[in-house]
Amino acid sequence: MSQLKTDIGNLLGKIRASTPLVHQITNYVTVNDCANMTLAIGASPVMADSIHEVMDMVSIASSLVINTGTLNEVTVVSMLVAAKQANAKGIPLVLDPVGAGATPYRTETVHQLLQQASFSVIRGNLSEIRVLAGLDEQTRGVDAATVFNAGSDRPAMQAFAKNMARKLNATIAITGAVDVVSDGVRVCFIENGRPEMSRVTGTGCMCTALVGAFLSVTDDSFLAAVAAVAGMGIAGEIAHENLQKPEGNASYRNRIIDAVYHLTAEQITEKGRLQE
Amino acid sequence: MSQLKTDIGNLLGKIRASTPLVHQITNYVTVNDCANMTLAIGASPVMADSIHEVMDMVSIASSLVINTGTLNEVTVVSMLVAAKQANAKGIPLVLDPVGAGATPYRTETVHQLLQQASFSVIRGNLSEIRVLAGLDEQTRGVDAATVFNAGSDRPAMQAFAKNMARKLNATIAITGAVDVVSDGVRVCFIENGRPEMSRVTGTGCMCTALVGAFLSVTDDSFLAAVAAVAGMGIAGEIAHENLQKPEGNASYRNRIIDAVYHLTAEQITEKGRLQE
Amino acid sequence: MSQLKTDIGNLLGKIRASTPLVHQITNYVTVNDCANMTLAIGASPVMADSIHEVMDMVSIASSLVINTGTLNEVTVVSMLVAAKQANAKGIPLVLDPVGAGATPYRTETVHQLLQQASFSVIRGNLSEIRVLAGLDEQTRGVDAATVFNAGSDRPAMQAFAKNMARKLNATIAITGAVDVVSDGVRVCFIENGRPEMSRVTGTGCMCTALVGAFLSVTDDSFLAAVAAVAGMGIAGEIAHENLQKPEGNASYRNRIIDAVYHLTAEQITEKGRLQE
Repeated sequence: MSQLKTDIGNLLGKIRASTPLVHQITNYVTVNDCANMTLAIGASPVMADSIHEVMDMVSIASSLVINTGTLNEVTVVSMLVAAKQANAKGIPLVLDPVGAGATPYRTETVHQLLQQASFSVIRGNLSEIRVLAGLDEQTRGVDAATVFNAGSDRPAMQAFAKNMARKLNATIAITGAVDVVSDGVRVCFIENGRPEMSRVTGTGCMCTALVGAFLSVTDDSFLAAVAAVAGMGIAGEIAHENLQKPEGNASYRNRIIDAVYHLTAEQITEKGRLQE
Repeated sequence: MSQLKTDIGNLLGKIRASTPLVHQITNYVTVNDCANMTLAIGASPVMADSIHEVMDMVSIASSLVINTGTLNEVTVVSMLVAAKQANAKGIPLVLDPVGAGATPYRTETVHQLLQQASFSVIRGNLSEIRVLAGLDEQTRGVDAATVFNAGSDRPAMQAFAKNMARKLNATIAITGAVDVVSDGVRVCFIENGRPEMSRVTGTGCMCTALVGAFLSVTDDSFLAAVAAVAGMGIAGEIAHENLQKPEGNASYRNRIIDAVYHLTAEQITEKGRLQE
Repeated sequence: MSQLKTDIGNLLGKIRASTPLVHQITNYVTVNDCANMTLAIGASPVMADSIHEVMDMVSIASSLVINTGTLNEVTVVSMLVAAKQANAKGIPLVLDPVGAGATPYRTETVHQLLQQASFSVIRGNLSEIRVLAGLDEQTRGVDAATVFNAGSDRPAMQAFAKNMARKLNATIAITGAVDVVSDGVRVCFIENGRPEMSRVTGTGCMCTALVGAFLSVTDDSFLAAVAAVAGMGIAGEIAHENLQKPEGNASYRNRIIDAVYHLTAEQITEKGRLQE
């Protein structure tokens, strides 16, 4: 466990030493926060979604993040083209299937992406990830209720995450009250974070942006996903401690990004609550 | 009057108890603030504007907000389709005619929306609402000068708001130095808010997002509009008190959302300046 | 030198006295910050990019800012149409060639804009401006390394800026560790700003929005560009002084906008580090 935290700290140092370029095709709701979050961790963001440039852009990037938060027929084509190019160039690919299950269009788009490209990491809430399994579930908007009993259901979650990872041939990161990451063999539960994070739009998207940053500096997608999820959770805790009395969710957003900006290997070691 | 404030406080509790889903087809300038504002009041936002999913999305939502801040031919079609579906499903519909009058395209789009769908509430500044009346007025960008003399012109404003509400068969909320809300029978003036709010982009859009949240928990569109406008104004006052010395409009934006996050029924009772 | 700073202070007063409308066709990543920055300096922003309204919108604006941060075939056409209309109407035009050189699409779009319209000011980093010169250079995303030795290379930078201004028949503002502005005759180096500004997304875009605001109140494009670049740098310094211990790049963003909101002619005189 201690080794895992040390490895995360080392990856953090690598990002800051190399400033990798993270190409993101994402939604227009949380795009600014994703850009600042990418800068906070020490990487460099570029948001580009035109069919006329995504192949060129992904080719100079260290990773590609695809987020389905706001879809339209133009960007869906760009996502598919860019994802295939990332695979062809050996550039790690991350999927955030925002709102999968909420509408048939989102579900079908996510299925198309999974059929046409290989993803290193897929991060979503329980309800979104269930949809990828083909289980019928209507996601309620993008804030799907993903109550996931951290006690008695843990064996079930472990089995689900492992199975999903094997089925989708990707590292799966399911975030909620307790987060779980699996690559089909290894499994890690992460108990960091605060419930108030769900009152800030884009905490999931920002976490996925962090996955892209970590994947830029390691081939170990399991480690990259654990690092991003733990880093986001720890930042959420630090930010919460820093909140002043009259501050609410807008200031919390800023303080979470700020906490990632100042995140250290020591904080990861000290505050990380990881259980393999 | 005291009853009105009590009713608003009760609606606030209802939103927080039920976390209604507010579907918003809005502009890309202030969309993030609208999402965080929706979360701040206790509701859940979903931004979706593709023609391939708006009918599905609005069908699972508790209300639909349409905001014309940045239009294009693709989203205008989505707005029309979603608005008609909302009417068909009995889902309350809100319009924010941002910039109506600034260009013929905006004015025509707003007129199309009004012809093809029934809105529960329309919120705009005086200049935008005048355009809906067919009065000729060139809106100056989206920050139309809406000087509206809170003293001597109040009878004129009351008559105008009432007439507009009857003409458009909707509750009309006109925001400015003093706000006025009317459903054609009832009229309420709201004297909350701060002039500095006009130096923050999107305070109007965020107010309209709040209308969507309140409409999710009541059939009384007049009450919902008064609640949103008063809530926004009170939050603007509280946020202004909380400003630290070097803070300006960017921090004010955050503090306004933060104030809505912490808004209580007691604050509404204590600070609300409503006059029926 | 002192005269230049006095002139900038006077322009600032003019903006606040007249609240000019600045039309911006920009990217969806930093658009909200550009709107709040425009309001902070005292101008009024309007973001509109539909082909159906850009000609009308630019005609009522005091300046037009075109930013290529996120391009697609629909907005590129709007940019070209709006730029030509701005020229026809005598409305000053600003270009921010974000990411020029990163992909052929961006480079070609920027070249198209330069061929079809006359710009008063072009602001970019060294790598982007080099691309405009036709020099081969691959921009690395939008955060191109533009190390530009403030000591020994200054004569080279001066010559480069002057030549580019003549070649492109526009005032050129190259921002980096040290900024340089030239209209082909005059040259000004600006030593304000902080390295931490590069960790905030959109500081370049926001600076360009300020150019639009200053151009709205003067025919002297050199002065407008120097004013915007110096104003942004000074605000970056003030904001950095105001940062509290746990604050990082997200709070820094807000504090930069806040500092522009409170910017005074006295601060420009006192803190401006301009060298003609």
